[in-house]
Amino acid sequence: MMVEGFIADGGKAMPFDDAFRARLRDLLVWRRDVRRFRRDPLPAGSVERLIGLACLAPSVGLSEPWRFVIVDDPVRRAAIRTNFERCNADALAVQNENRAAAYARLKFAGLDEAPAQLAVFADRSTMQGHGLGRHTMPEMIEYSAVTAVHTIWLAARSDGIGVGWVSILEPAAVGTILEVPQDWKFIAYLCLGFAQSEDDSPDLARKGWEKRQPFPVVLRR
Amino acid sequence: MMVEGFIADGGKAMPFDDAFRARLRDLLVWRRDVRRFRRDPLPAGSVERLIGLACLAPSVGLSEPWRFVIVDDPVRRAAIRTNFERCNADALAVQNENRAAAYARLKFAGLDEAPAQLAVFADRSTMQGHGLGRHTMPEMIEYSAVTAVHTIWLAARSDGIGVGWVSILEPAAVGTILEVPQDWKFIAYLCLGFAQSEDDSPDLARKGWEKRQPFPVVLRR
Repeated sequence: MMVEGFIADGGKAMPFDDAFRARLRDLLVWRRDVRRFRRDPLPAGSVERLIGLACLAPSVGLSEPWRFVIVDDPVRRAAIRTNFERCNADALAVQNENRAAAYARLKFAGLDEAPAQLAVFADRSTMQGHGLGRHTMPEMIEYSAVTAVHTIWLAARSDGIGVGWVSILEPAAVGTILEVPQDWKFIAYLCLGFAQSEDDSPDLARKGWEKRQPFPVVLRR
Repeated sequence: MMVEGFIADGGKAMPFDDAFRARLRDLLVWRRDVRRFRRDPLPAGSVERLIGLACLAPSVGLSEPWRFVIVDDPVRRAAIRTNFERCNADALAVQNENRAAAYARLKFAGLDEAPAQLAVFADRSTMQGHGLGRHTMPEMIEYSAVTAVHTIWLAARSDGIGVGWVSILEPAAVGTILEVPQDWKFIAYLCLGFAQSEDDSPDLARKGWEKRQPFPVVLRR
């Protein structure tokens, strides 16, 4: 792609060059869902900095519906882990017999070791944005919070910090454990910390659970 | 953040430095929801390259549920635009009188001018990933497709290509117009092209519709 990425606009425009584009691709390639963390803490302020960057994510109607919960209390962390273990046991129980052994071998969460844990919610009741862009697709509120999570993920990787998104949880239980307002929809529970190792291929692919497809599905209409 | 971003791992690890982190922040700052496009076409292969990068996005259980539809047919584009115009008129009709004039002044889509148009769906029926991570949160399939959209957005901006996410559409109508399988859930209709101008603040903020909040909502639990 040889486009210079520069549109003249009274000197305000921000160009990006081939070198940056190559590094951005590296970032996408090396971003991983991390489940094995070192226990040493993150540098002070790391999570707050990532939250600040997350607020640069796109949001429908500029609604900024992302809500963050930094989870430090050992009792609440233990309750989250208990909920995860129950959900994971349920998921194992419904695996067919060909997959159950493989499922049992996988590690899905770094809840025991990750030094930082962050839950992200979407506030469906927010009036910010005045409903713009939400009438036919109210789920845009959740999608906006997802882009904030993805922003955290990429920025963290650029800091050398690994992120794991835990979805084997009951959303209602998480809301109760963390005592958040009823209108906040649970989006993600993130484990953050330094990864025990880095890799450029997904853990699930290396472990033989699933593989990437060689070509995307693209229709032309 | 002074962390070097490097974890030793048999020479495989990928470090990122302060200069890259600063440029990544620039990318987040200058990414915009673009509604005013130049009509000149994108360089050949641009959209396909962006789709390739989107496939590096995270997906639940490595399910890769993203499905792409490149929309070139003028008849289908016109049908999308008609649906948008009806949804937009409905949204204007329910604005309260204080906001209606402001709403009517805004431009929400570049459907007339954008040289490239791309719809993104999430295949909820996919067996890829074997259901991993989806039992308690089936919406993770949609969220995975959202991270693919966000990847396209960031990569496009690094190419100097603007993206606008149109959500003022009826999902069912879009599926019908584009003749996609029933199980594909509509996620995003993206307009792509060179922006008429670049900016580091949201159009909705500049136009006075909404403003960014100075501080994020962060609870500590």
